[in-house]
Amino acid sequence: MKLGELVKNPKGFKITGIYRISRFEVKTARNGKAYGDCLISDHSFEVPAKYWDIPTERVALFQKNGVLRIDATLDYFKDSPQLTIESVFLPLPAEVDQSLSSLGMMAPRPIDDMYVELKSIIANVGHEGLRKLLTGIFVDDRQFAEKFKRHPGAVKNHHAYIGGLLEHTLEVAVGALDYCKRNDKIKRDILLAAALVHDIGKVREIEVDMLGMGIGFTREGKLLRHISLGLEMLESACQSVGLEAEISLMLKHCILSHHGQAEWGSPVEPMFLEAELLHYLDNLSAKTEQFYREAERAEPGGFNKSATLRREIYRPGWE
Amino acid sequence: MKLGELVKNPKGFKITGIYRISRFEVKTARNGKAYGDCLISDHSFEVPAKYWDIPTERVALFQKNGVLRIDATLDYFKDSPQLTIESVFLPLPAEVDQSLSSLGMMAPRPIDDMYVELKSIIANVGHEGLRKLLTGIFVDDRQFAEKFKRHPGAVKNHHAYIGGLLEHTLEVAVGALDYCKRNDKIKRDILLAAALVHDIGKVREIEVDMLGMGIGFTREGKLLRHISLGLEMLESACQSVGLEAEISLMLKHCILSHHGQAEWGSPVEPMFLEAELLHYLDNLSAKTEQFYREAERAEPGGFNKSATLRREIYRPGWE
Amino acid sequence: MKLGELVKNPKGFKITGIYRISRFEVKTARNGKAYGDCLISDHSFEVPAKYWDIPTERVALFQKNGVLRIDATLDYFKDSPQLTIESVFLPLPAEVDQSLSSLGMMAPRPIDDMYVELKSIIANVGHEGLRKLLTGIFVDDRQFAEKFKRHPGAVKNHHAYIGGLLEHTLEVAVGALDYCKRNDKIKRDILLAAALVHDIGKVREIEVDMLGMGIGFTREGKLLRHISLGLEMLESACQSVGLEAEISLMLKHCILSHHGQAEWGSPVEPMFLEAELLHYLDNLSAKTEQFYREAERAEPGGFNKSATLRREIYRPGWE
Amino acid sequence: MKLGELVKNPKGFKITGIYRISRFEVKTARNGKAYGDCLISDHSFEVPAKYWDIPTERVALFQKNGVLRIDATLDYFKDSPQLTIESVFLPLPAEVDQSLSSLGMMAPRPIDDMYVELKSIIANVGHEGLRKLLTGIFVDDRQFAEKFKRHPGAVKNHHAYIGGLLEHTLEVAVGALDYCKRNDKIKRDILLAAALVHDIGKVREIEVDMLGMGIGFTREGKLLRHISLGLEMLESACQSVGLEAEISLMLKHCILSHHGQAEWGSPVEPMFLEAELLHYLDNLSAKTEQFYREAERAEPGGFNKSATLRREIYRPGWE
Amino acid sequence: MKLGELVKNPKGFKITGIYRISRFEVKTARNGKAYGDCLISDHSFEVPAKYWDIPTERVALFQKNGVLRIDATLDYFKDSPQLTIESVFLPLPAEVDQSLSSLGMMAPRPIDDMYVELKSIIANVGHEGLRKLLTGIFVDDRQFAEKFKRHPGAVKNHHAYIGGLLEHTLEVAVGALDYCKRNDKIKRDILLAAALVHDIGKVREIEVDMLGMGIGFTREGKLLRHISLGLEMLESACQSVGLEAEISLMLKHCILSHHGQAEWGSPVEPMFLEAELLHYLDNLSAKTEQFYREAERAEPGGFNKSATLRREIYRPGWE
Amino acid sequence: MKLGELVKNPKGFKITGIYRISRFEVKTARNGKAYGDCLISDHSFEVPAKYWDIPTERVALFQKNGVLRIDATLDYFKDSPQLTIESVFLPLPAEVDQSLSSLGMMAPRPIDDMYVELKSIIANVGHEGLRKLLTGIFVDDRQFAEKFKRHPGAVKNHHAYIGGLLEHTLEVAVGALDYCKRNDKIKRDILLAAALVHDIGKVREIEVDMLGMGIGFTREGKLLRHISLGLEMLESACQSVGLEAEISLMLKHCILSHHGQAEWGSPVEPMFLEAELLHYLDNLSAKTEQFYREAERAEPGGFNKSATLRREIYRPGWE
Repeated sequence: MKLGELVKNPKGFKITGIYRISRFEVKTARNGKAYGDCLISDHSFEVPAKYWDIPTERVALFQKNGVLRIDATLDYFKDSPQLTIESVFLPLPAEVDQSLSSLGMMAPRPIDDMYVELKSIIANVGHEGLRKLLTGIFVDDRQFAEKFKRHPGAVKNHHAYIGGLLEHTLEVAVGALDYCKRNDKIKRDILLAAALVHDIGKVREIEVDMLGMGIGFTREGKLLRHISLGLEMLESACQSVGLEAEISLMLKHCILSHHGQAEWGSPVEPMFLEAELLHYLDNLSAKTEQFYREAERAEPGGFNKSATLRREIYRPGWE
Repeated sequence: MKLGELVKNPKGFKITGIYRISRFEVKTARNGKAYGDCLISDHSFEVPAKYWDIPTERVALFQKNGVLRIDATLDYFKDSPQLTIESVFLPLPAEVDQSLSSLGMMAPRPIDDMYVELKSIIANVGHEGLRKLLTGIFVDDRQFAEKFKRHPGAVKNHHAYIGGLLEHTLEVAVGALDYCKRNDKIKRDILLAAALVHDIGKVREIEVDMLGMGIGFTREGKLLRHISLGLEMLESACQSVGLEAEISLMLKHCILSHHGQAEWGSPVEPMFLEAELLHYLDNLSAKTEQFYREAERAEPGGFNKSATLRREIYRPGWE
Repeated sequence: MKLGELVKNPKGFKITGIYRISRFEVKTARNGKAYGDCLISDHSFEVPAKYWDIPTERVALFQKNGVLRIDATLDYFKDSPQLTIESVFLPLPAEVDQSLSSLGMMAPRPIDDMYVELKSIIANVGHEGLRKLLTGIFVDDRQFAEKFKRHPGAVKNHHAYIGGLLEHTLEVAVGALDYCKRNDKIKRDILLAAALVHDIGKVREIEVDMLGMGIGFTREGKLLRHISLGLEMLESACQSVGLEAEISLMLKHCILSHHGQAEWGSPVEPMFLEAELLHYLDNLSAKTEQFYREAERAEPGGFNKSATLRREIYRPGWE
Repeated sequence: MKLGELVKNPKGFKITGIYRISRFEVKTARNGKAYGDCLISDHSFEVPAKYWDIPTERVALFQKNGVLRIDATLDYFKDSPQLTIESVFLPLPAEVDQSLSSLGMMAPRPIDDMYVELKSIIANVGHEGLRKLLTGIFVDDRQFAEKFKRHPGAVKNHHAYIGGLLEHTLEVAVGALDYCKRNDKIKRDILLAAALVHDIGKVREIEVDMLGMGIGFTREGKLLRHISLGLEMLESACQSVGLEAEISLMLKHCILSHHGQAEWGSPVEPMFLEAELLHYLDNLSAKTEQFYREAERAEPGGFNKSATLRREIYRPGWE
Repeated sequence: MKLGELVKNPKGFKITGIYRISRFEVKTARNGKAYGDCLISDHSFEVPAKYWDIPTERVALFQKNGVLRIDATLDYFKDSPQLTIESVFLPLPAEVDQSLSSLGMMAPRPIDDMYVELKSIIANVGHEGLRKLLTGIFVDDRQFAEKFKRHPGAVKNHHAYIGGLLEHTLEVAVGALDYCKRNDKIKRDILLAAALVHDIGKVREIEVDMLGMGIGFTREGKLLRHISLGLEMLESACQSVGLEAEISLMLKHCILSHHGQAEWGSPVEPMFLEAELLHYLDNLSAKTEQFYREAERAEPGGFNKSATLRREIYRPGWE
Repeated sequence: MKLGELVKNPKGFKITGIYRISRFEVKTARNGKAYGDCLISDHSFEVPAKYWDIPTERVALFQKNGVLRIDATLDYFKDSPQLTIESVFLPLPAEVDQSLSSLGMMAPRPIDDMYVELKSIIANVGHEGLRKLLTGIFVDDRQFAEKFKRHPGAVKNHHAYIGGLLEHTLEVAVGALDYCKRNDKIKRDILLAAALVHDIGKVREIEVDMLGMGIGFTREGKLLRHISLGLEMLESACQSVGLEAEISLMLKHCILSHHGQAEWGSPVEPMFLEAELLHYLDNLSAKTEQFYREAERAEPGGFNKSATLRREIYRPGWE
């Protein structure tokens, strides 16, 4: 059950489901017994909950896990809903992903599916050096690959959920492949490789919580931003596979210029076709996700004032 | 023969071919006889030519036609090439288009082919009102359709040749269709219709010469620009077919906002998904043509300083 | 009595007057009886009021009217004033306008007087086509004329009250007439007509409440803004009277460019004298009203931080 | 005769008239004799002229005077017109002003008339302190008054001719008086005084030639600009007449803010009504002169690309 | 004791110390007796305090002094600390400064020491006219000198405490002296004099409270800003000592341009070496103080979001 | 002799000196013999020269060397000076540097002296890791050190001569040391190291000619700019010496942010004290050189319109 719908129910209503633990603290009640004081949330709602007389072994469950299966009873305190927890369980791994997804905290498409598609795209890159480079980064560097697969695309702006970075990267790459079908003047392998690596620096820029949701920026994320971090990671990968100089230089330029303008974070503007196209393909993917989500917050035929887009977003009056 | 290659030949060299007449004047030679003083050009080069003792009936040929088949002899004046015209002929209509195309003054793909594709796209629009609207504009309004088919996409920036507006419009529309295949959240018919009408105002904004090449802006083009002109044309078409209010409003917003920002000519930023996507799809088509053409002017592995893009454009060192 | 002065009186004080009903809801009291819970306001103050045991027939009075004559008794709840309504009456139409005006919710000068002046200005336009055009818009189109006469000039910025649009339009037109007296190089009829039509799009852009006060923007107001809406309305009127092309084009340019710069909403800058003058005459009227009102909120010799003007406004220390 | 019309005449044509001497140098001809080499101009055209065997006493005439009455014969050198001077005379003072005016180098209205009007406006200022201040500046300070009366309003932008500063100042002041008639909320004397002093710093900012035409900026004009120079002059005048502090402060603010924005040279934006109005009244006068002059350079129904206005200016197709 | 540490202590804890009186009012308690209701603060914390049965002669103490020595007892009201004042004393002047300094409300270095250094720098200026000018302003004009010595450098941005203006001015001047040692191309006396006078206008721009802390801007500070005020003060001083024109002009330009750009408040950019250097030396001093203070508010190794610097400031993880 | 002074001498004048060969070509004279056609220049002037009947062995001299000792005779062609070369010699290495320096093409101070100072500064860095890092870059990496020592600081803007990069770097570093003496809150070793490495990327960004003068940008210089190149070089050096993470991160941030703002090329603004100071110290050095050089081009008491500084630069009227 979505937490936003709790209030439609009367006091005493029983709920069960997998939710995020946004905050957890052990406190002492007036009767001297320990109780758990926590906030339970799904992607858009947050509800306070109390676990009276919490058994000691359950405390660790809360402290080590970001999501738990919860059985609770609804109560109201000054008209606001509040839950009394009856019992908690560790959900199965498969259950966790499924519930994250249904709560809007994970990419709609299964991460493993997307990763398989990513690898297949890489395997089809014609230029040997680029194929080696991409394989080195996204497949052979297991530690990076694991992080990348589940990393969010942003803290707030777009694809801001688990697996969002992979999803966005794949959208840009597939968009590039599609576009190249109609345009034989484009250096397809350059554009494709640039699409795949353009945001790798976000893995080091965005700080994630226990679950993998973005909660802010890392120290190096704030001081260097993902473009410079991505350049550093790419340079190291290019060195490893001995990529030829011009191609490595073009890829670096694509990362550096993909925000398009100085005021949007790119100190150089795109200076060749593939770099320019990357900028627009990146935006197509990012803005589709962002506009759709922002429009959903409006009534059909109405507007939603979007803080991240700095304008009002219209939602058409029919589906 | 491309005029840029003339200088590789010696004085007395004979050339024959179809060229543009950029300027023509009848003057009087020192011997008291009339001669034709003109400039012959292809898309990238311009050469002065003299037609001594020009027969009176040929004068009209020059005055009424933008391109002519020319037989001439090469001469040099202060190291610069100059032609002496021996005879001129009116080329066949088919020959004209072919030569315009080979001179870079017409879209590479035949205009009629492109128009057939445009009509087939319109015929497949699902929404009846929109299909009527588009048919009304691009098919039934014969006068507009004839102009639109051969109109240039710009005076200088992109698709600046005969048929360029149709070519660009088609690229944006096909790009929209492609993109929608992967994204079921987009209102496909809105995006498609917006893609087709986004630049119709250019037919009234850009002034063309006898051939159909853009040579500047019309009076209303300067005072109102193509966005306002397009809005006016769309409003009139919407009224004709009685398009429902919300859809007509959304299309108008797409035209109004498709430059993306106030400083780029759009007084409102895109406020829904389809309008935002149009902005990027428009750029993909425009920038592909523009970057490719600007890069061609550089040596492989070198840069070309582009005035219209305000930056240097790199041409990769390999093909 | 101004509501801002209520707090100078003791509990039990009786007031009577015509006020705006900003909010009205029927609720059930603890004793099970219906009561009316509302907010009563004048232009600068808002006070909660309760109407205990509200008679059923009075409920409709509240629901159908924006202003009512109210008899009430003053009370205090946690030091804040609150009214208990004794009885309400429907004010006479003449009373309504008078009280709106004294509450700062209507233009100081009677609307009918201003409209008479507007018509007399139009009747004196020398150019026949323009006189027809203006008569068509402001006199013959009765539906538009009725809306225009009472429409506010803005939601917040300037002339933001009933009749404000007419008042502002008249000020710009009279300013144009005055200025032309000293300058015979100006095409007076163009400037005058441009002054009269420059903001007609606001009738469709600004959403008004039951009373006629601006409360936000309409759907088309947000998606197209008043400049594009005004262009559309003007084009339609020009077609009706068959205005000559150049004059119609110049008027459209005046509407399009009257905000002066891209960042202020005009995609083209004024390109002839009359368009440029309109921009400054528009500002003279708008800023006189806005600065005067903002300064009134400061103490004499002090400053008021104006949100709409984004600066502090000084009020001189003497009158 | 306007110099721009010279070329319509054949070699040997005689002209006589009063012209500006833009450049004059004594050189030695091949025959060893001295000749005068000069440039003769009116406001829009410049023609080279030779004075063969120039009599010594005439050399001084050229060196000490900016305009001379010239009798000359037309010749052509490589198709360009060139004059051979037959004789020169010192024109009468009245003749000079008249001819400067007809050449577009002096305000159309006689300077003395304008100055009389200025003094009469000052005499009618109600506030005694302000009247004293303005009398002190524009009447009693004879040295300043003499300069001010003939100073140009700019080097290039607007009112860029002798007497232009006085003409512009008067236009702004009269505009202020007119506007105040309709608006009793404006502090008329403040606005009027601000209008009169707003550009006094230009007397020290613009460097003039012998005739009084602006030819560039003075050292202090470049380093401080006319706003800071005007503030300094005003402060000194305020001290002299002991003007009350608040009024003096308000006038200074009006000078400081009259360009309206930081990017246009005003470090503070107008912060009270009269300062804001001054900004628009200043623009009305400046832009009327500038647009009219720029439009005159276009054909009727055509455009002139204006360098100072950074846009194309349209000239209507009828008078 | 720092007020921020109060809460570590239990109810009934006794404190004594010199604090700022941020607000003081005499009220009547329920028992009908007068009591003092005030806010006690140091630079970063504010605590409410009550002085029950306040003796009449103590009321004046509070009203006339910004800091007092206070003996009080700690209490808690809804978990927030609150003080009950037992007695108050007037601190000795030396005590006041010492405590202001320890509370971060006064420059760390004694004001008299800094002033001695300032005078010694002036005495060593080589150019006689400049030495006279500076002596006239900073030494002979006793009234100005007394204000300048204790004036804050800003209300919020940098050196925002008593003596901050003197401290900042000295830092810029010493920086100039240091820099000149390595660069013999700089006109040392010009740069030094410019450094000393660059912010003198702040004495008239910033409004101070009884203690001397900046609490806002004066009327002339808002309407003219410190750059124009400083120019006026400098002009008057230059006149007094009859400084040669070029030097006076260069100093004025230094004041006018020292913010570097129009958008930062300087209507002209620096146009000679010394003016340009002043801009950077001014920033070195200002930013050192500001960054250091903002970084102190972060944890070591963490960030502080600075409102005045509009970015996050990093504090290194080690000392 | 400075080439700019050539024109003061008559035809036939003999000159001898070491000059730059800006262009050299072997051509065939009308008499069928080979001659050398070249341009001889010093930093501010360029003169054409002919070497008639050039001996074959001299051709190589011209082709392999950027500067030569030249004996020539002055001639005039259409009033412009032209040289006839009598003989050329290879100058001694010491002579070359000396003459480059006197021609303004090399830093005024000997490169080896500056490099010794640089090493001594590095040797005195207290933090062991930073000392190792700097030694690794500037001393142990012999290839880089040799390039760095003679590299220009820019193509045009500042320190645009051989050794200019070393000179500028040293100025910033010494400025940092000086400034730290007075401010114990600065992390001296961080600031110093940042000063030394801030422009190392210029070695890869600026393309130099045979002599070492900057003639444009390299391919990677255009596509990545010196900030990104410097980051890459720094990262590699940090890895080599295993510098601790926080310090390496802070240095990278200093390079990335040292241009201060997005519009000046830094995608992040300085976020800690040392990074902010670097920005101003960098400017102090750069602007001192640039303003001084630009002012030298003006007359004393006059202005020079500087293209690189986009403003007029004033040169004081006395030395």
